[in-house]
Amino acid sequence: MREENGDMYEEKISTWLNEHRTNGIRLLQKLVQEPSKRGQEGSAQAIVVEKCRQLGLEIDLWEIGDEKLRNHPHFYCDRKDFKGNPNLVAIKRGIGNGKSLILNGHIDVVPEGGHAAWHDDPYSGMEKDGKVFGRGTTDMKGGNVSLLLALEAIIESGIQLKGDVIFQSVIEEESGGAGTLAAVLRGYRADGAIIPEPTNMKLFPLQQGSMWFRLIVKGKSAHGGTRYEGVSAIDKAISVMLEIKKLEKERNESLRHSLYKNVKIPIPINIGSIQSGNWPSSVPDTAVLEGRFGIAPTETMEAAQRSLMQCIEALNETDAWFKEKPIELEWFGARWLPGSLELEHPLMKTLGAYYEKVMGEQPLVEASPWATDGGYLSSVGSTPVVVFGPGETKLAHDSNEYIEVDKMMDVAKIIALTIIEWCGVEEQ
Amino acid sequence: MREENGDMYEEKISTWLNEHRTNGIRLLQKLVQEPSKRGQEGSAQAIVVEKCRQLGLEIDLWEIGDEKLRNHPHFYCDRKDFKGNPNLVAIKRGIGNGKSLILNGHIDVVPEGGHAAWHDDPYSGMEKDGKVFGRGTTDMKGGNVSLLLALEAIIESGIQLKGDVIFQSVIEEESGGAGTLAAVLRGYRADGAIIPEPTNMKLFPLQQGSMWFRLIVKGKSAHGGTRYEGVSAIDKAISVMLEIKKLEKERNESLRHSLYKNVKIPIPINIGSIQSGNWPSSVPDTAVLEGRFGIAPTETMEAAQRSLMQCIEALNETDAWFKEKPIELEWFGARWLPGSLELEHPLMKTLGAYYEKVMGEQPLVEASPWATDGGYLSSVGSTPVVVFGPGETKLAHDSNEYIEVDKMMDVAKIIALTIIEWCGVEEQ
Repeated sequence: MREENGDMYEEKISTWLNEHRTNGIRLLQKLVQEPSKRGQEGSAQAIVVEKCRQLGLEIDLWEIGDEKLRNHPHFYCDRKDFKGNPNLVAIKRGIGNGKSLILNGHIDVVPEGGHAAWHDDPYSGMEKDGKVFGRGTTDMKGGNVSLLLALEAIIESGIQLKGDVIFQSVIEEESGGAGTLAAVLRGYRADGAIIPEPTNMKLFPLQQGSMWFRLIVKGKSAHGGTRYEGVSAIDKAISVMLEIKKLEKERNESLRHSLYKNVKIPIPINIGSIQSGNWPSSVPDTAVLEGRFGIAPTETMEAAQRSLMQCIEALNETDAWFKEKPIELEWFGARWLPGSLELEHPLMKTLGAYYEKVMGEQPLVEASPWATDGGYLSSVGSTPVVVFGPGETKLAHDSNEYIEVDKMMDVAKIIALTIIEWCGVEEQ
Repeated sequence: MREENGDMYEEKISTWLNEHRTNGIRLLQKLVQEPSKRGQEGSAQAIVVEKCRQLGLEIDLWEIGDEKLRNHPHFYCDRKDFKGNPNLVAIKRGIGNGKSLILNGHIDVVPEGGHAAWHDDPYSGMEKDGKVFGRGTTDMKGGNVSLLLALEAIIESGIQLKGDVIFQSVIEEESGGAGTLAAVLRGYRADGAIIPEPTNMKLFPLQQGSMWFRLIVKGKSAHGGTRYEGVSAIDKAISVMLEIKKLEKERNESLRHSLYKNVKIPIPINIGSIQSGNWPSSVPDTAVLEGRFGIAPTETMEAAQRSLMQCIEALNETDAWFKEKPIELEWFGARWLPGSLELEHPLMKTLGAYYEKVMGEQPLVEASPWATDGGYLSSVGSTPVVVFGPGETKLAHDSNEYIEVDKMMDVAKIIALTIIEWCGVEEQ
């Protein structure tokens, strides 16, 4: 676009966003107050649908789970029933001859954990000191509101886009991305995509992949009063966890990529849960560990699986107890494809330029320490992806999660201006 | 009794037991095939009741849980409902002028654990190679059958006892002994008591006490992909468990008692369960550990509690994380009083003498590495207690639990002869 027009659009977008800050906060609060945990996404999604209807978007609302999806080689989902919890794609159709852009946000949130760790109701949506609190504010309903505000600002400012903007509010991101995969398989592809996951306003052209694993560790039960007659599955699980820590260290030490230089553990292995035993006076005979295995953007899923398998096999061969009762390793549920975009891609340049314009400094570019749905958009949908959002990684999945309203509004502005440049405008 | 009469009784009892071995096995199988886990004791108890009715015993069958029991200072029970799962006392009334004897067995069993560890259905009651298999065979339905066979042998042999034999089949032993406490409070006391817990035919005049505890360990949740932003409650729980291992070592090293010299860990601290986390991709923010704390027969409950409290308080003071988020310690549910009997008590002598007569060797005398209901009988009921039974400690609470039929029959014989001597017989 011409420079003077660019300034005019920026002025319009800024003004509209400044005047509608409170509307953005209210929309976020309504979304947070619907706990859209897995299997309960419907009520929050309904709020997004109504917003898109008000904006005059073309609405495609459907329950995922057809044969095409279920038979896809990258469908890694253990969910049986998607009834009542639809996926949403809502399109702002351009007038033609412009590049298209996908704006991809997920509506699902992870469970809130123990309530005692929260200062308030985890679903309060309380606003305080320029922040909105609650599960999902950072990951990623705040980012979703940035997308909707960006679109609304453009529409309300009367700006006519050439290319299509394809807004997506998907389910299942936290459990492996079946919602985004379903959207790709339904035909939604574009010249670029932005995913406003919590990058703390950094640009992430690389996305780490990840997989879920389960380890079943055997012990030998006995009366607790003669616990030396048994073998505690908890004790044995501890020895397994120590080996996994070593494996994580090795994998991260061998990882060399300039974008990971500021990341403490680029590809972590997280033990998310342990369940063992059901009686205080018995030695537990089984421990089940579940966790998330990080995959480097440059690594195949298969190579990553092999590295954990080899670690477990080594334990099964060297530990006298595990020789007798081998640890079982299962891969289950979620799996996120890694993905990457060259640093010089036009979408990186456009987004980076408007970041600099709005924030007055160059953006930080990093590789994501976690997986996103970006892998599906790029690998399966051939759509170039940048992950860029207002939330903070360290607040995601934590108690007392919050988002800074200023950042949510700044991201809305940066994305609105990126849309205008990327999709092009019919100059009047 | 006169020597020639003693020989005559032994002959009668032996003959009867040899002829009724199969009946004993069948009774045990029927009892094992009713999984009398906590809250489901009724069906197995019904089999015992019917057996006692056939033997012509005075039956007292009642649902425990009255105010007197609930208000007792040693009632340590978190069970709300005892409906449908009664306690049983069944009395063989003597003709008078003899000493009375309580025969105390519990009908409840601990859960069977993971079925995969069992070669057969945990409730099969399968007989193979002179053994009967299944949850509860050793702990302690096999012992209960020894008691019932002993009584039946005496009755069927037409032997008239002077003193009362008070057979008890109680609930709740595995959860803290409310069933035996209820029987004591209902007035059942005697000049002696035998509890056929799995001592592997050793005599246990000392009973270890125990208590259940719960530790709540806090972490700080975070997205698993940036797990370094959180603090894993599992990692913190591991450090707590290591400290508890140290405490167990100290407590056992400082314990000096001749009867414990062959016991590997006289007063163990068993971590029976850990539950932490509910999402593979989240750092868990809470871990709950439940366990059993062994109390020396010479130790008060309060002193034992203090030793764990001091261990946890020390961690809360020295560990930087626990300073901020202290570990919480709770005592809950089960609590078994320790107890002891002098080695020269007449009941020890009588039981020991008949052990020697039947087995042809002196009995081993040890202190129990685990708690029994004996503490209630002795401390609250002023009834001298010896624990002596056919099962093996190391099989109790384990998968593939079994009892050797020979031992069950030998114990029946030893106890029958002890009853005859202890209660006295009207010589004909």
